This record gives sequence, C-alpha cells and structure tokens, in this order.
Amino acid sequence: MAQLLLGKEVTASMNESLRCRAASLRSRGVTPKLVILRCGEASSDLAYEKSALARAAQIGVEAEVRALPQNVSRQALLDALDAVNADRSIHGCLLFRPLPQHLRPFQDEIVNRLDPAKDVDSMTSLSCSGVFTGQAVGFPPCTAQACMEILDHYGIACRGRRAVVIGRSLVIGKPVSMLLLARDATVTICHTKTDDLPAVTRQADILISAAGALGSLTADHVRPGQIVLDVSVNWDAQKPNARGGLGAIAGDAVFSEVEPVVGAITPVPGGVGAVTASVLIGHVVEAAERTL
Amino acid sequence: MAQLLLGKEVTASMNESLRCRAASLRSRGVTPKLVILRCGEASSDLAYEKSALARAAQIGVEAEVRALPQNVSRQALLDALDAVNADRSIHGCLLFRPLPQHLRPFQDEIVNRLDPAKDVDSMTSLSCSGVFTGQAVGFPPCTAQACMEILDHYGIACRGRRAVVIGRSLVIGKPVSMLLLARDATVTICHTKTDDLPAVTRQADILISAAGALGSLTADHVRPGQIVLDVSVNWDAQKPNARGGLGAIAGDAVFSEVEPVVGAITPVPGGVGAVTASVLIGHVVEAAERTL
Repeated sequence: MAQLLLGKEVTASMNESLRCRAASLRSRGVTPKLVILRCGEASSDLAYEKSALARAAQIGVEAEVRALPQNVSRQALLDALDAVNADRSIHGCLLFRPLPQHLRPFQDEIVNRLDPAKDVDSMTSLSCSGVFTGQAVGFPPCTAQACMEILDHYGIACRGRRAVVIGRSLVIGKPVSMLLLARDATVTICHTKTDDLPAVTRQADILISAAGALGSLTADHVRPGQIVLDVSVNWDAQKPNARGGLGAIAGDAVFSEVEPVVGAITPVPGGVGAVTASVLIGHVVEAAERTL
Repeated sequence: MAQLLLGKEVTASMNESLRCRAASLRSRGVTPKLVILRCGEASSDLAYEKSALARAAQIGVEAEVRALPQNVSRQALLDALDAVNADRSIHGCLLFRPLPQHLRPFQDEIVNRLDPAKDVDSMTSLSCSGVFTGQAVGFPPCTAQACMEILDHYGIACRGRRAVVIGRSLVIGKPVSMLLLARDATVTICHTKTDDLPAVTRQADILISAAGALGSLTADHVRPGQIVLDVSVNWDAQKPNARGGLGAIAGDAVFSEVEPVVGAITPVPGGVGAVTASVLIGHVVEAAERTL
C-alpha cells in the first residue's frame, strides 16, 4: 500500500501561508491581482478558470476575467496584453492556450507581448530562459512547480537522488527536469523514443510521469519504495465516475497495478492537478511581492 | 584501443561546407561578418580570438576585433554592443566572458543588449530560451554544438540511446543535454551532488564529461563500447608538453585508463575544443543566411 500524496493536503498548507502573505501585502496597500485572458469558451479553460477564481478568493487575491470572443483578432489580443502590461494594479496574467486556430501563426508574438514580470504561467521566452538558467525571471509553469510543492510538502528530498521524468514538453517535462536539477537531483529525461523505458524508470527514486498516455505506466515500470508523481490528465471512458456511470479522468498509471508496488503516489484526480491553481495564485502573490 | 574522435577531421569537413556556403553568400552580395568584442587582454581570450580569426579567414568570413580596455565603462560596452546591433553588415558578435570584475554587477544588462539574431555564442536570454525550447532563436553555445558536430561527423546515432552528461553549466552541461534530447537521446544530467556517479556513467552509450576536474573520469566510470566526449580543458602540471617540459592541458579523463576500455574518445587537446572555432564561424554564416 503506497502512501497517497494528496493535492488537498499540499494546498491546505500552501493556502495558509499564501493568505498570510496576501494579507501582509494588503496591509502595505498592495492588493495582489490576477487577470485571466480567455479567447472563447473552451470547457477545459472554463474549468481551470473556475478553480483559479475560487482559489484567489480563498487566498485574498483579486481576480478578473477578461473574456474575448473566440474570433478575437490578433491586434485586439495584443491590445489586451498591452493593457495588462500598462496597469500597475495587475501583478499576474494567465492567457489560456492553445490559442484559437487563427491566432496560432502569431503565437510567438502574442505570448511574448506579456511583461515577463507578470507571466505567472511561463509562456514568455524570458520565463523559459529563467527556468533553464535558474534565474528568477518570470515563473516556472504551474504544473511543473506543483510537482515540487508536493515533494516539499511531504518532505521528499531530491539531493543526490535519481529522478526520472517521462515526457519532454515545455509545459511539464523539460521545466520539471530543470527544477529537479536545481534541487540537486540526478535527472533523466525520457520520451517516446526511449529504448526500454521500464528499465530506465525502475532506476528512479522519484518518477514523474507526464506521458499523457492512459495506462502507459504499469507494474513493469516501477519498483518498491519509489515516489511516483502522475502528472497526466487523460480521459478513461471505462472508469466509473461519481454519477454512477462510466467515463472519468485518470493519469498515466494503471493505478491498481502501480499503487501496491511503490512507496508513494499521487492519485488522478486529487494529486498534482489539485495543486496547480494554488501555485498560480502563489505566483501572483510573489509577483506582487517583487514589486515592493 | 578506442577510436580517436579527432577535432581536425570534423573541422575539415565542416570548413569545406562552410566555405561553400560563405562563397554562395558573397555571390549574392552578402559577406558574412563577425565582430569580436574583447575587454582587456586575458590570455585565454587572445588564444581563442587567434583561432577564430584564422578559421574565419579559412572559410571566407570577415572578422574584426574591437578591443576595449580592461577598465571599459558599462556605458562604453553597451555603446559598443549598440553599434554592433545597428550595423547591418555585421552578422555575428562574440563578447568574451567572464567580463572584467567591475562589470559583473551589470552582466545581465550587458549580455542581453546584443540582438539575439547576432548572438553566435548563446549569451542572451533569448538564445538560452531557444536552446531550451528547441526554437531557432539565436544559437546554442559553440562548445555544446561542437559535441553534436563530432557525433554527426562520425555517424554516431543518438535516437533512443542513453546519453549521460556530467556537468550542469549553462555553457555546456544544460545546453548539450537539450541538444541531445532534440536528437531523441534519453538524457541523464549528473553533477557534483550525484550519488554513485560511476554507476550512472557506466549506463551511458554516449558520455559527455564536462566536470572540469582533472583526472575525474577513471576506468571505474566507463565500460566497453561507450562513446566518450571529454569536453573539459584542465591544466595538468605533470603532463609532458611539446617543449620537452612538464605542464599541458588535459581533459577530465585519465586517458591511459579510459581509452583502452571505451569504444571511442575525444583526446584533449585535439578533440572538442578543436571544433569550437568552426562552430562559431558556422554560426556567423548561418546568421548571415537568416538575413536573406
């Protein structure tokens, strides 16, 4: 029986500390504020927006949604970002991506229009550079940092230990590798071209699975004592849901196989994903602190 | 007996192709041009400058040294960078680092003043971001790319194979890890805090040693068949030199121990370091090509 690493336990302690920091900012006349820029009404955007707004309210951070139409023009979106940059009362901005199809050719220009100091989810090149170099420019992607918050909360040391990351995306695989490296882990980055993945993952002390492939992490990939963070959010059409039917989200792990073997694991839902909104709001608080 | 991976063989074929590309640019009215900015006269800077100038001449790239005094002011150096940025006949700029002590507090401002399009040795944040994200913004550090040129020249495939990098600096360890990852290697990054380094390095198919520690790579770290790139340039006071005395440069490897075990290895000198200047000049050619 593995220890369950529960997002709600991590966020409970994060939120307490963030509430205190936000109150301290307000007492100095600064109300930390997040603006969410959304183009259209994708259901995954709306779900994350709802949890970010709730978390902001809990912590004492002001949050405002600026909803743009799905067919917003490139210029109108750039103008919206310029308005965020110019407004000193706004400390952080989340722009949902992927952008609508017609804006993808301008993606680089658009994401880099945001002031990196307000880039609370690592979309600008300068934030990426900060994650790579270890400098405090912008912020790491929220999901990558959520992994570190979980390790920290449960007192899991990284120094000298072997961390294996499955996935090399800019949203999670590469940045979480850099964050683990900054904590002195020995980091191995795996991906779809890796030969004999199970042999590599079994060597991990800390295993981060961000393959985004339902059922891809099996008993064969793990060994006793490992810490497993299952980052992916996949749709499992066969999984019983809370409404008594079938169809629910699930991670990469075949939970019934992996959980009995390893030392600790995050469930999906209720693991890494549950921490992300607190990290986002934490970045807004930190962005506000940096302006003092 | 390992195969020796010789820098001069790699540069011979690189230079041939670069001469052809430079000639093609000149036939279109564009002479690729490098400016070297140097503050003071550090002997290591002068040595690299000499080899860069020689390589530029061989390839048909114009090169100009702009030597600033050791005590150059922050503003005068920024002005020199602005002049490089403004001059459309200049395609690449190399600024020697480390900067003089009095300029270190302004290092971030100074290195980021250069137009990333002319940043042929990856000193700007945007170049770092490009290496991290895999975008063609700026260029990777020359030494990191020299490793890839050697692997390419000798037909050493990366895809699916295990690469282990010793060192996590921004000059070599982190960027070469990203370049290996872009070639679909499974990459492990080790460093001074890694537990049981020999056990990790023996798993490598391709081992990049950038520890910068004389004699740190021993027979214990390697196994038969491995490809070893020894990137470090250390001073070995006991090594016989060409003048019949003692004192010469050497890599991390105890060559007499490691070479008999592995499949292939770069000597020091004559390995990775011998390729760096060609990579630099190659970046200038590519920067010029990107302006067409």
